[in-house]
Amino acid sequence: MSRRSPQSPPLDPTILRARLDRARQAADAAETDALLIAPGSDLRYLLGEAGGSFERLTALVLPAGDGVPALVVPKLEAPGYAHVPAEDLGVEVVTWVDGEDPYRMIADRLGKPGRVAVSDNTLALHVLAFRDALGDAEQTLAGPVVRELRMRKDAAEIDALRRAGAAIDRVHARVGEWLRPGRTEAEVGADIAAAIVEEGHALADFVIVGSGPNGASPHHDVSDRVIERGDVVVVDIGGPLPEGYNSDSTRTYAVGEPRDADVAETYAVLQRAQRAAVEAVRPGVTAQDVDAAARSVITDAGYGEFFIHRTGHGIGLDVHEEPYIVGGNTLPLEPGMAFSVEPGIYQPGRWGARIEDIVVVTEGGVESLNNQPHELVVLGA
Amino acid sequence: MSRRSPQSPPLDPTILRARLDRARQAADAAETDALLIAPGSDLRYLLGEAGGSFERLTALVLPAGDGVPALVVPKLEAPGYAHVPAEDLGVEVVTWVDGEDPYRMIADRLGKPGRVAVSDNTLALHVLAFRDALGDAEQTLAGPVVRELRMRKDAAEIDALRRAGAAIDRVHARVGEWLRPGRTEAEVGADIAAAIVEEGHALADFVIVGSGPNGASPHHDVSDRVIERGDVVVVDIGGPLPEGYNSDSTRTYAVGEPRDADVAETYAVLQRAQRAAVEAVRPGVTAQDVDAAARSVITDAGYGEFFIHRTGHGIGLDVHEEPYIVGGNTLPLEPGMAFSVEPGIYQPGRWGARIEDIVVVTEGGVESLNNQPHELVVLGA
Repeated sequence: MSRRSPQSPPLDPTILRARLDRARQAADAAETDALLIAPGSDLRYLLGEAGGSFERLTALVLPAGDGVPALVVPKLEAPGYAHVPAEDLGVEVVTWVDGEDPYRMIADRLGKPGRVAVSDNTLALHVLAFRDALGDAEQTLAGPVVRELRMRKDAAEIDALRRAGAAIDRVHARVGEWLRPGRTEAEVGADIAAAIVEEGHALADFVIVGSGPNGASPHHDVSDRVIERGDVVVVDIGGPLPEGYNSDSTRTYAVGEPRDADVAETYAVLQRAQRAAVEAVRPGVTAQDVDAAARSVITDAGYGEFFIHRTGHGIGLDVHEEPYIVGGNTLPLEPGMAFSVEPGIYQPGRWGARIEDIVVVTEGGVESLNNQPHELVVLGA
Repeated sequence: MSRRSPQSPPLDPTILRARLDRARQAADAAETDALLIAPGSDLRYLLGEAGGSFERLTALVLPAGDGVPALVVPKLEAPGYAHVPAEDLGVEVVTWVDGEDPYRMIADRLGKPGRVAVSDNTLALHVLAFRDALGDAEQTLAGPVVRELRMRKDAAEIDALRRAGAAIDRVHARVGEWLRPGRTEAEVGADIAAAIVEEGHALADFVIVGSGPNGASPHHDVSDRVIERGDVVVVDIGGPLPEGYNSDSTRTYAVGEPRDADVAETYAVLQRAQRAAVEAVRPGVTAQDVDAAARSVITDAGYGEFFIHRTGHGIGLDVHEEPYIVGGNTLPLEPGMAFSVEPGIYQPGRWGARIEDIVVVTEGGVESLNNQPHELVVLGA
């Protein structure tokens, strides 16, 4: 059996080689002797293939110095990496079979390292087995090293995010086809999921249709609740393009005129907050400044207690990645950083609203990759 | 955004309470002060809800002794656990918001533990943050504790696996509708995936259609290879029922008479090996004995080097779990254990074959949950 990510078109080995070199330099700068990268987005970023694994270990072993990088992979899963240009990249492919100890193989390869970093998504099963095989080496996270690369997107990555944004915008433009009274959230969600694929995504990774009181739960997905006239409905949707870069956009709809009298005024506050945060984005501004730009508008209007999450998250090969747009994050924004700006106001038991765009920091300020109107979309009902 | 497992019907709190009690006792017996269970199958087993999470920590904290168990969850994700009968189970729900330190909250709750176990699928991000918050506590894996429970299935779990087996058998019975020359593996795989859902699975978790030379790669999934007359095709498919228990069954098909002259003889060896392994299953026999039963038939016939993986894996809420049917595993089988028996013979560059049934250990011996014929299925072409 097999559960693998959708395969991307092969990446230019020149790009991958530059990323591997930069990762090694970043590891060196972090006084880390080696990075151990498990299957997932970090592996996809570095080798052009996300891979996939279960209880059998697969890992890219990337020494900070002159050692030869190795892709350690179970022999029977090795064919899944056949398109990785390992030779061009100077990566040795090391296979192992059931009964061998891949952790020991890697430890022997690394000699006596002082500090080894594992990718943030490595499973505990492997983290602790590495710990035992590595003896006295300090074990740290590779995330802080790899994110320094991944959060600064190049032009091709931004272009992929731009295409993902346009694709999800086309889905939002069609929501009125499906969102009607008498249908369940799950039925509407299934139609949206099909459209996400039709509009060019590899898969519909998430579909939130939060109607009425369900909209007040930011991470609700879909339910059997029947949508009623007067409902306010939060639709938060996205997925990866075949090349791996994700979309993520939220719009809030009303099925006929909203039943609750406070919707118009509250929504106007939310819209001002979202715009203020987007307009705050430019090089040198910190992540927390952007959060504060949205939060201060909502707090000043008296709704602060109903905005119960951070303003946004980075996006790329993962839907959630650095930089996080949250109080306390003093990271200065740089051109090429991409993230969501998605304040929300949630009225428990009644309704909720959220507006979410993906934006990119440019030399001159900001580019929004989602461009559907920001007004509350009142559908005929 | 949200990526959650399909929700199961709520489990009887009595069953969950018994599981929680047994887990605490097993932790105590393993001299472990607490189990930290991340979202996934372990959580589903213990609380009836798999949950889902990303960079924000969710964990069930289960003290071995008298302490009160806690479900620690980000406030905005808490509604996803509303159907967990926490009060009935004596589990306190502890929410946290962005900016708080959930690792410190858990460490404070546990006092000064000597040993804390994390579930095998906990992400390194959380494993190492726990390590730092827990100070001197030894960190181990919860897998060996929890698997003692999970690998001994009760009657309801076996019944769920039986229904999953029957559902995937119905899909295999229909493969002739789709597997024809001139179609790609991916096209055939899409039809099979749709049928997996039609026949009662929550989703098609994996679909391998390995035609001709691709069949010689055990973890191939699907490709754009066009199926040709004379191909031998490995079809390995499965997914979870809505209640979470998985199917997983492989049959090997021939599209018209096989092109390679050695197929009939080799396949007959494989069929004998698979039968020998199933017939070896009964209480008291070890997992490695079952592996040896299949392997010795294949080795004695001179094909040992072409059987490049273990004979099987346990199955339940995970597709791969304990017990593993592999050389070196001296675990004696007990009634209620469920696993695959799936020897294969792979001829690099030409073709491969595998036969896979899920079987359950019974008091009297073995019950096979897959019951499609084991012969090479020669389709009209």
